[in-house]
Amino acid sequence: MASLAVPDINVVALCGSLRKTSYHRGLVRSAIQISQESVKGMKIEYVDISPLPFINTDLEVNGTFPPEVEAFRQKILAADCFLFASPEYNYSVSPPLKNAIDWASRPSNVWAGKRAAIISTGGNFGGGRGQYHLRQIGVYLDLHFVNKPEFFVYAFQPPQKFDGEGNLVDPESKQRLKEVLLSLQAFALEKKGN
Amino acid sequence: MASLAVPDINVVALCGSLRKTSYHRGLVRSAIQISQESVKGMKIEYVDISPLPFINTDLEVNGTFPPEVEAFRQKILAADCFLFASPEYNYSVSPPLKNAIDWASRPSNVWAGKRAAIISTGGNFGGGRGQYHLRQIGVYLDLHFVNKPEFFVYAFQPPQKFDGEGNLVDPESKQRLKEVLLSLQAFALEKKGN
Amino acid sequence: MASLAVPDINVVALCGSLRKTSYHRGLVRSAIQISQESVKGMKIEYVDISPLPFINTDLEVNGTFPPEVEAFRQKILAADCFLFASPEYNYSVSPPLKNAIDWASRPSNVWAGKRAAIISTGGNFGGGRGQYHLRQIGVYLDLHFVNKPEFFVYAFQPPQKFDGEGNLVDPESKQRLKEVLLSLQAFALEKKGN
Amino acid sequence: MASLAVPDINVVALCGSLRKTSYHRGLVRSAIQISQESVKGMKIEYVDISPLPFINTDLEVNGTFPPEVEAFRQKILAADCFLFASPEYNYSVSPPLKNAIDWASRPSNVWAGKRAAIISTGGNFGGGRGQYHLRQIGVYLDLHFVNKPEFFVYAFQPPQKFDGEGNLVDPESKQRLKEVLLSLQAFALEKKGN
Repeated sequence: MASLAVPDINVVALCGSLRKTSYHRGLVRSAIQISQESVKGMKIEYVDISPLPFINTDLEVNGTFPPEVEAFRQKILAADCFLFASPEYNYSVSPPLKNAIDWASRPSNVWAGKRAAIISTGGNFGGGRGQYHLRQIGVYLDLHFVNKPEFFVYAFQPPQKFDGEGNLVDPESKQRLKEVLLSLQAFALEKKGN
Repeated sequence: MASLAVPDINVVALCGSLRKTSYHRGLVRSAIQISQESVKGMKIEYVDISPLPFINTDLEVNGTFPPEVEAFRQKILAADCFLFASPEYNYSVSPPLKNAIDWASRPSNVWAGKRAAIISTGGNFGGGRGQYHLRQIGVYLDLHFVNKPEFFVYAFQPPQKFDGEGNLVDPESKQRLKEVLLSLQAFALEKKGN
Repeated sequence: MASLAVPDINVVALCGSLRKTSYHRGLVRSAIQISQESVKGMKIEYVDISPLPFINTDLEVNGTFPPEVEAFRQKILAADCFLFASPEYNYSVSPPLKNAIDWASRPSNVWAGKRAAIISTGGNFGGGRGQYHLRQIGVYLDLHFVNKPEFFVYAFQPPQKFDGEGNLVDPESKQRLKEVLLSLQAFALEKKGN
Repeated sequence: MASLAVPDINVVALCGSLRKTSYHRGLVRSAIQISQESVKGMKIEYVDISPLPFINTDLEVNGTFPPEVEAFRQKILAADCFLFASPEYNYSVSPPLKNAIDWASRPSNVWAGKRAAIISTGGNFGGGRGQYHLRQIGVYLDLHFVNKPEFFVYAFQPPQKFDGEGNLVDPESKQRLKEVLLSLQAFALEKKGN
């Protein structure tokens, strides 16, 4: 490669839960902090999906989207890649996250050709079942996901993973989250030819 | 069996699309008409999911649900079984349908132990990928789905399947839809011990 | 119900691993012992799938199956329901188990209309990803699976779950396995109208 | 990019059916012919999976694999990427293909970090359900799959797709197959930094 400097990777992070003290919101905060402290060349911006209306193409009038949708789509379009903090609701993806995904997939699909990583937490499989549904969704979106490492936080197994405000407090989980970010960065740079 | 008469089966039908001329809404209308005309002992009630807010357990205050959610949950609780008209959005379930499902699964899960059928239409696989995600969701809900016949309408293959208002107009599809209803009825009666 | 006695439920148990000290083989042994000791009216027979050749319909000559396949199909045909001890290999079902399933699905599909339960063990999700693939396979087979309880044994978390010969030695896991068997029995009896 | 010439991409093609006149074997033959005629820089080698025994780690003795397994693993290790001709058996992957996949995943996993495409044919969804299971399997293998175009041949819809020996004879399907190969090539070159 001829490039002298590694280009910056711009990541948009989405959180699939609307709860105020959501652990998934905490995972996003933690990812942002980790990227600032120790992942050179990666900028993560949290984008809130709660303003979006329920997907309904009747709301697309004369080829225009509702303003909240249009603003969201511009954020997705401008990103190099994505970090999905994706809770598992009833063995699948949460409605607010799927809703955001669907709006941004409307022609022209602004996800297309980009890279992404999925992080989740929960009881049982730590959100795992939802992650595989999200990967299938990504086939149509034309997203490519990081395979290794996968990231599941078993929220209710010791040691304590989150504090009462949903902040990730477990050092081992933070280290694994950093590895996810590094893997996403490498995967995105490959796409850029670096 | 000692029973002299087959008990009525009360079905709640849900439509995963919010569009006014939705084909899935048309499938529900068609199912209701078919049941009235030719499936003795089955009553299908359409329940609108559009009033529900996005799932967010912060909205559950002192163990009570928002009124629209509570009303919806009462409808689900009272039903014997379910007919999901489930469009495929990006290879999975639509956000409004998943949202309704998630609200009714909140403790106590009012889907538990009941029977259901899935119907869908679309290009390509006729909504098929979304159906398999819905089946996985059903494992946690403790729903049991009709296996045979599966019902997919290939919306864009001849002959014409729907008119401009989203009404199902294809006789062969109507006949197959009737078979789904009969299969759901038999499966639900088995549960009732008949 | 008018019946004076609950009919016996005949279960065929299959193990998806060919290893001599397979934990899944141990789960089957444990299920048989539990059924004999404390599940009145359930008989579990272990059927070995290792003699089956790889699925290849060229081996069906003049409408007859190879003798090992024919013998296996007769066992499946005679059973009321099934217990799949299904290891997860690379996030899906093991080849020997899928192979046995496929042979018995050849026309006429001898699984059709019956009930089943899945049990698994492993690291990570305890075999969970494979279980959901098996459930999708069951849609075409027309099998109905027990939803609750699901059964995963986290093989490498304390306390010790298996001894060196693959025998299940953890009392809590045995208790949960018994609950799976009771759930399968109830589900199969419902099918029989009891 | 500084490179003056595009490096050759070496593809290993696998066929999941053991039938002599398999349509999937025909898809592989067609892909090889197309690559030779019109995809410069791509070499496809067909590797037969029928000699492999059923996966059973008891067959790994002193860290060595059976000779057929070892030979297969060397082929996979040497390839840049993969073309899976993957039939759908009972809504999932065929046992012979999954078996080959599993052997090559044994430590050290020789699939890791490579690119792949899936092609299939069949009734109904043209093998689609099996393709999504294969994609989930690929997460653990650390394979990245081409998203666009997906390739399904609806074997029993007009016009005729295959002749009596399993050769692909439909020009439109051949054109789409060429597009899959070009997409795989571009995806593999990206990985190589070209």
